[in-house]
Amino acid sequence: MIIIGEKINSTLKAIRPAMESRDHSTIQELAIRQRDAGAAYIDVNAGMFHNNEPEVLEWLIHTIQEVCDTPFSIDSPSANGILSGLKANRNSKPIINSITGEKDRFNTILPLVAEYKTGVVALCMDDRGMPETVHERFEVAETLIKNLTREGIPLDDIYIDPLVRPIGTGSHYGMLAIETIRNVKNAYPEVHIACGLSNVSFGIPARKIMNQTFLVAAMAAGMDGAILDPLDKKLMAYLYATEALLGRDEYCLNYLDKFRQGELEF
Amino acid sequence: MIIIGEKINSTLKAIRPAMESRDHSTIQELAIRQRDAGAAYIDVNAGMFHNNEPEVLEWLIHTIQEVCDTPFSIDSPSANGILSGLKANRNSKPIINSITGEKDRFNTILPLVAEYKTGVVALCMDDRGMPETVHERFEVAETLIKNLTREGIPLDDIYIDPLVRPIGTGSHYGMLAIETIRNVKNAYPEVHIACGLSNVSFGIPARKIMNQTFLVAAMAAGMDGAILDPLDKKLMAYLYATEALLGRDEYCLNYLDKFRQGELEF
Repeated sequence: MIIIGEKINSTLKAIRPAMESRDHSTIQELAIRQRDAGAAYIDVNAGMFHNNEPEVLEWLIHTIQEVCDTPFSIDSPSANGILSGLKANRNSKPIINSITGEKDRFNTILPLVAEYKTGVVALCMDDRGMPETVHERFEVAETLIKNLTREGIPLDDIYIDPLVRPIGTGSHYGMLAIETIRNVKNAYPEVHIACGLSNVSFGIPARKIMNQTFLVAAMAAGMDGAILDPLDKKLMAYLYATEALLGRDEYCLNYLDKFRQGELEF
Repeated sequence: MIIIGEKINSTLKAIRPAMESRDHSTIQELAIRQRDAGAAYIDVNAGMFHNNEPEVLEWLIHTIQEVCDTPFSIDSPSANGILSGLKANRNSKPIINSITGEKDRFNTILPLVAEYKTGVVALCMDDRGMPETVHERFEVAETLIKNLTREGIPLDDIYIDPLVRPIGTGSHYGMLAIETIRNVKNAYPEVHIACGLSNVSFGIPARKIMNQTFLVAAMAAGMDGAILDPLDKKLMAYLYATEALLGRDEYCLNYLDKFRQGELEF
């Protein structure tokens, strides 16, 4: 599994003060802890700083890469923010989070992906919104994949986010995400998935149980990447168990190793 | 989900003494608790009583049906045991657990299924053993389904057990079970699955995490029935979460109800 660590995000109330006060050590420690817990990418998001987002993002990247060479997922609503992050970045190949099928967004972000040869998270939505059927959502994914590869972006650099909506607002949203993942991976095995997990449980209780359940079901459908909290030990326990269950952990060696480290008992 | 409650089983050391001493109240209470926890069938197994298995099975059924009208899953290695259970049964339509594709077993058990018009658990094995590929295992399931329906057994009375083997002995066994379930349900939507859960984790640590993970993945592949412990609250929490996630719990009403009852917090 390609884990994109989601903790350094200005929408999280626990971390925003550390960004406001430019608290180096808190940010650095959070990056290192996520890396040590298995994050292949560190997501950085300063989107809540409406007045100086590019500057905060640049500071985050400078701060983190002083101590941690894990590549970044540069997460910004604005092309300016992303460009600022790309210019600051000295770690290896980052992911841009994100592009969509919306014409303006696509045309603004694509040149950055191409110029900086980055990976890119592509959200399954376009100017018509988020489609409500698996077929239509897959079509949006496919159009994104075709338009990106036509511009020279390799399949292996594309991370499709099926856009999980809360099952509390529609009973079909779980299956919609799971079957979109399955269809994308069947049609484009080289393309990756980078799925946010926690939205599925928005508005219902016992969210962690639902998030763990979604993780397992989505991985069983072919999800090979996710934006999640690698410091959530229970969630990670289900991730290791699912990898072993699906035959992606030969002889269950990683699962057994995590057990010995006390990561599977709670 | 069709839950077959597995607790009244002579192979379980905690319960066998109650069978040996003919302890009515322990057996009755265990049946009632499983029913209240959602069991649609109560499995009864006296297979460890090699000298008088049919007699113990008969006693179990008489004892339970005094207080509980949940149908039985009559679980026996011997046709004599099953016949004894069928004769004792006064509850509604039971399931015979189990038939296989082994010629002798098939020919001995089939007449009981037909005469007593029961459901039947059909294990994916035949005289060649347990096949090692999804394709072959599906073929064994299909042959069983065809041979049973040819004898007049309705599809809806057939419960395919894909036979889950421990992933500690082969990394492919999880996917083998999951994909067999998916193929059987795709080809025969009316046929049910009745899958034992705990074997998947035999020999590895943190078994409950693996069993919960398997439950979620198998349900996502179409599993609509399982032989499990309905008194395991954590396992049941993942079952309710999966039903909601897969859109089988309209408006998450059952999930929300279980939360209010305190069944989703631990």
